[in-house]
Amino acid sequence: MEKAFSNEQVPNWRDQITCRAIVTSLILSVVFNFIVCKLNLTTGIIPSLNVAAGLLGFAMLKLYTAVLDKFGLLKQPFTRQENTVIQTCVVASSGIAFSSGTASYLLGMSKDVAAQLETGNDPNNVKKLAPGWMIGYLFAVSFVGLFSIVPLKRVMILKSKLTYPSGTATAYLINSFHTPKGAKLAKKQVSVLFKSFSFSFVWAFFQWFSAAGDGCGFASFPTFGLKAFAQRFYFDFSATYVGVGLICPYMVNISLLIGAIMSWGIMWPLIEAKKGKWYSADLSASSLHGIQGYRVFIAVATMLGDGLFQVLYMAIVMSISFYKKRSKKSGSSSLEKDEPVSFDEQKRNEYFNKDQIPKLAAVVGYLVLAAISTIVVPLFIFPQLKWYHMIVAYIIAPILAFCNAYGCGLTDWSLASNYGKLAILIFSAWAGTQNGGIVAGLAACGVMMNIVSTASDLMQDFKTGYLTLSSPRSMFLSQVIGTAIGCIMSPLVFWVFYRAYSVGDPHGSYPAPYGALYRGIAVLGSEGLGSLPHNCLKLSIGFFFGAILLNLLTLLLKLYETKYRLYRFVPSPMCMAIPFYLGAYFAIDMCIGSLILFIWEKKNKKAAKELAPAVASGMICGDSLWGVPAAILSMVGVKAPMCMKFLSASVNKKVDGFLGN
Amino acid sequence: MEKAFSNEQVPNWRDQITCRAIVTSLILSVVFNFIVCKLNLTTGIIPSLNVAAGLLGFAMLKLYTAVLDKFGLLKQPFTRQENTVIQTCVVASSGIAFSSGTASYLLGMSKDVAAQLETGNDPNNVKKLAPGWMIGYLFAVSFVGLFSIVPLKRVMILKSKLTYPSGTATAYLINSFHTPKGAKLAKKQVSVLFKSFSFSFVWAFFQWFSAAGDGCGFASFPTFGLKAFAQRFYFDFSATYVGVGLICPYMVNISLLIGAIMSWGIMWPLIEAKKGKWYSADLSASSLHGIQGYRVFIAVATMLGDGLFQVLYMAIVMSISFYKKRSKKSGSSSLEKDEPVSFDEQKRNEYFNKDQIPKLAAVVGYLVLAAISTIVVPLFIFPQLKWYHMIVAYIIAPILAFCNAYGCGLTDWSLASNYGKLAILIFSAWAGTQNGGIVAGLAACGVMMNIVSTASDLMQDFKTGYLTLSSPRSMFLSQVIGTAIGCIMSPLVFWVFYRAYSVGDPHGSYPAPYGALYRGIAVLGSEGLGSLPHNCLKLSIGFFFGAILLNLLTLLLKLYETKYRLYRFVPSPMCMAIPFYLGAYFAIDMCIGSLILFIWEKKNKKAAKELAPAVASGMICGDSLWGVPAAILSMVGVKAPMCMKFLSASVNKKVDGFLGN
Repeated sequence: MEKAFSNEQVPNWRDQITCRAIVTSLILSVVFNFIVCKLNLTTGIIPSLNVAAGLLGFAMLKLYTAVLDKFGLLKQPFTRQENTVIQTCVVASSGIAFSSGTASYLLGMSKDVAAQLETGNDPNNVKKLAPGWMIGYLFAVSFVGLFSIVPLKRVMILKSKLTYPSGTATAYLINSFHTPKGAKLAKKQVSVLFKSFSFSFVWAFFQWFSAAGDGCGFASFPTFGLKAFAQRFYFDFSATYVGVGLICPYMVNISLLIGAIMSWGIMWPLIEAKKGKWYSADLSASSLHGIQGYRVFIAVATMLGDGLFQVLYMAIVMSISFYKKRSKKSGSSSLEKDEPVSFDEQKRNEYFNKDQIPKLAAVVGYLVLAAISTIVVPLFIFPQLKWYHMIVAYIIAPILAFCNAYGCGLTDWSLASNYGKLAILIFSAWAGTQNGGIVAGLAACGVMMNIVSTASDLMQDFKTGYLTLSSPRSMFLSQVIGTAIGCIMSPLVFWVFYRAYSVGDPHGSYPAPYGALYRGIAVLGSEGLGSLPHNCLKLSIGFFFGAILLNLLTLLLKLYETKYRLYRFVPSPMCMAIPFYLGAYFAIDMCIGSLILFIWEKKNKKAAKELAPAVASGMICGDSLWGVPAAILSMVGVKAPMCMKFLSASVNKKVDGFLGN
Repeated sequence: MEKAFSNEQVPNWRDQITCRAIVTSLILSVVFNFIVCKLNLTTGIIPSLNVAAGLLGFAMLKLYTAVLDKFGLLKQPFTRQENTVIQTCVVASSGIAFSSGTASYLLGMSKDVAAQLETGNDPNNVKKLAPGWMIGYLFAVSFVGLFSIVPLKRVMILKSKLTYPSGTATAYLINSFHTPKGAKLAKKQVSVLFKSFSFSFVWAFFQWFSAAGDGCGFASFPTFGLKAFAQRFYFDFSATYVGVGLICPYMVNISLLIGAIMSWGIMWPLIEAKKGKWYSADLSASSLHGIQGYRVFIAVATMLGDGLFQVLYMAIVMSISFYKKRSKKSGSSSLEKDEPVSFDEQKRNEYFNKDQIPKLAAVVGYLVLAAISTIVVPLFIFPQLKWYHMIVAYIIAPILAFCNAYGCGLTDWSLASNYGKLAILIFSAWAGTQNGGIVAGLAACGVMMNIVSTASDLMQDFKTGYLTLSSPRSMFLSQVIGTAIGCIMSPLVFWVFYRAYSVGDPHGSYPAPYGALYRGIAVLGSEGLGSLPHNCLKLSIGFFFGAILLNLLTLLLKLYETKYRLYRFVPSPMCMAIPFYLGAYFAIDMCIGSLILFIWEKKNKKAAKELAPAVASGMICGDSLWGVPAAILSMVGVKAPMCMKFLSASVNKKVDGFLGN
């Protein structure tokens, strides 16, 4: 690979972070913050947007440099390293859009969600959302993670040679863009992306016209009839989730559908039949002590079971990997040193070792930032969270961050949100409800999640940088820039949606499921198991262990059944749990995405592989970006002119009578 | 061409009409009767379904023979001639579906249409529709035409060598099916046809679910907003008319749209503004003395102007062509005889001359059938029509039939419905309103139209037969069989729709525009110009001459402006007149069909040319055939479960209030 680039000079690390790269990153960060925020607020399922970010970043800067070049004004050519800087920056900022928790732990603190769950709705356990303190909080907790495991980067990248599948894939993507053949493919992909972008933007725009009120428009189309619609089984014509389905693996989409059928198709109707027996019939439909409680806590139990399994499993995998390495090293340390190093590797090692980040700077950075946030967060933002909570969090965090970064390097699976959920349980139990345990737990979740997720993102980016000969210093700096952009943009973008729509309303367009689910975990932690409605504990325990068993089954099949690879057909408990709360509609969208991909692959495997991610990205971006004008229209009070309503034949007759036709 | 088939034996004429061919024809006749009937009842625009009939006939019999062949049971191979027999039979029977006038002159006699127009609604000018007398009437008037110009077939096919573009195209299609390359293409076309068939059938089925009442479902989708919808500008998601648009020439579709914009966009709103001045404000919206009168009579005037021009033009073209032939003959009669005859022609002449239909039989047949219908029709079916009317009609008819067959041979343009319209005017004026002139005129229209149209169809088929070496006898016989099938099927199929829906209601799904338009002509004939509302006469005269001028313009451009061929961009008055009555929705469907074809041709001209007719046929067939189960469901009282309703935002609020959400 590096031979192809041998006559290209690698610029100095300062020249990798160009002004144009930062401007491009800023523009794309805004775009991706909108997209991620919209996804967060609708279902919380965020597909990998790396390809979209890569393609768009490349296309923008390529266009810019090509135009400059035409007029003879181009001074510095567009390099791989610059491209990597953009990619890192954009991914970092949209990473913050996720880990900032505007749709999960922060939203869970809001009065609306608390009122909806009818639990812990007192001033101590609620915090009014406002962009000001949210930005401050994010700044206080997000940068710590960057310093937490920087000293270990040589160990993880050079010594352990962790794969980091996503980081590696991104690097190959960027490398390919800068070869002639790759550039041609990229051009085709960009053109496909823009086509599907335009289509989905126009489609979203068209849908808007007939959606004047609740239950209006294509999003409420009872595709499978009104009865199925009442149980949330319908195709909602959302280009976004069809696109997400195109990107996500088949089994994810099918797991979602299985989860939806299990819950909304079977369990909830059965439990609702016990209304008055298992739970009071007077409760509102959204009370945590009624049917909503079953939905929330069974989903939470499944997620916790899955999360716990993943954490333990990762710990075991890591120990084995360490043990193997050590026994290998002690036995044949001389052999490893003499291992022949390829040209590519030699070159990469050279550039990776060139610019270093001093270990001392990293350690000092971590301590200073941790100290600041230990003082600032309890004092100015969350009085419910005490300084000793923070100190404990900052002692555990680097360990978990290392575990997660290492695990992610092996399996591409970031467990940040799992660590976050465990943090909620622990800290909210520690603080207790009367001391605002719910808010304390949720705030601690943010502290933990941000450190753990930014740390593994950074390591991922180091890998990408390593493979594209980008300097670790420019990677670190662009990650810092991206994080800063994310900390500012994410609350602001959220604020646009929050002002324009009733975010968190389970029947609205933006149900933001994780808001209620995360608060549910905090309630569980601070109030204990007594807060659950009748029989809910039994069911939850069942699902908790069910999730573990299902994971165990997958693992065993993976290890011992290699002929048919049956493990591919075991659904994922985490995926099954999301529709427990939301219903089937987005699972149906995503399965349609899978179906399209399946047919496409049957017809033309190569084209599907090359173009499906671009098509999907276009669909997601177009639909999500219509959210910007839609939110603005909604804020200035412009309503759609028309309602496409769905009535049963008998109701229709009544309405016709009422309207006097 | 014939060299390719030289080692294939041409079967005896009796062996060309096989049992399997008749069964296939019967099945396809039923299918095509449904399709034509549905098209008739919705807009009255019937595209050429020859390709569909050819493909389906070929596919069915090929499949049947291939299966038999596999089991070694095939005795007689599938020949071109047999294929031609099927084609002739199916086209004949669907020709009757059109000329039977179930959606035009017969429907115009019904009480519903009379009541709607609020004119001539007395027992004498109305006839209750019933399948019994309709079948009898069709049998009485349809076969006469077959005998009317049979004696002239050698003159027209062999001597004058008229081209008959459609007949020739059909022959080439059938010939190509029986060559290896053509068979391969046919297979592809059939597969495409079935795909688009399935799609449009499923789509129609899906649409049904949300169309529980009037103004429900996709057919009432206000694509361009509610205001445009009120003026009948919307896309009604009908696969049929998108398919029709794919087949019809661009200019037809654009003419329709221009007509729609002119009438519903500009004229009708302006005239409606004069309500109370130009016509009484108390009149119902559908009265011929109100706004509906303007719609009907202006459309009628335009059609009559166009029709008159075409008839006169054809007369002139024919005279010139005769004159040229005669002067050529007298000058060089010896030369023509010595003209070298190609192998193809030699072969074709041989087979065409082999089996003859005796001239005497034809003349006797005509006289006997004419006598029977002269007695039967006035006596048993329409007492309003006198025997002397019939005799006059049967004296004029063969002349017009010859004119039309000759003109059709030159230009592919059958003027049957124009002759029919003129017949309405003449005979209804002759009989007078008090003597039931409206019904008399409409019935005379049927007599005339059937003779004229079956005669030209027959000559067309002789041409096809000539080019496929099919015997004239087998052609004649299969035409007779097809006509008989049509005479029975057409009223029965109509009856299914008539029983199931409110056919002829301008706001329903089956407005059947020609019912009211033809009755309008009869009203005009029997009541005179006094029946028109204020200023309608002036406008109608304007449109009458406008239509003639537009045709003249096209003609002059065609003759003298050959550089840019601007005549292609002059709209057709006949096409513009249809939306005067119906509105823009189907014109929009058809223009979307044009748009699809245009893009397709840009992308891949060859594929578009080869496959577009198949795709279109599939779309038309699928959507129309859903009409069968839909009509049955409607008759047994099964209603769609749901209504997709379109309300303005303000009405939606009211409805939400009413429903108590």
